[in-house]
Amino acid sequence: MYLAKVYVTLKPTVNDPQGRTVMGGLKSLGFDSVADVRIGKYLEVRLGEANRAQAEAKVKEMCDKLLANPVIEQYRYEVVEA
Amino acid sequence: MYLAKVYVTLKPTVNDPQGRTVMGGLKSLGFDSVADVRIGKYLEVRLGEANRAQAEAKVKEMCDKLLANPVIEQYRYEVVEA
Repeated sequence: MYLAKVYVTLKPTVNDPQGRTVMGGLKSLGFDSVADVRIGKYLEVRLGEANRAQAEAKVKEMCDKLLANPVIEQYRYEVVEA
Repeated sequence: MYLAKVYVTLKPTVNDPQGRTVMGGLKSLGFDSVADVRIGKYLEVRLGEANRAQAEAKVKEMCDKLLANPVIEQYRYEVVEA
């Protein structure tokens, strides 16, 4: 069994209104040193593949097909034995 | 300037309907080996603090006050110079 940790983030050039809102919230709570906030998704996917290479290939395919929107998002992942 | 990478996840005992839905989507796309999916948030916070210890203290305070809901969520973070 492998555990894939997938990080999906907006591309740097894409606006992040959710992040701006959280930054506003932090500033209004007195966190004046905050310069920027960007928000992405963090997914943990458990999958039963025969070996790590196969698990990594599957995770890449999942990201391309469902987990990330390639137009505005980028992703990275790491696969560990679990 | 420091960059804090914050991972907010549901506590293990808390139901994750969003994760279940994504798992269903993956299975219907033919990814039969998927055993579980859990979804959390990934935040990148840029902040101008004098040193790393101070930055880490601020990030912990942000998580406790706004970024995570301590009733159902847990968080971890790492702070790097940026």
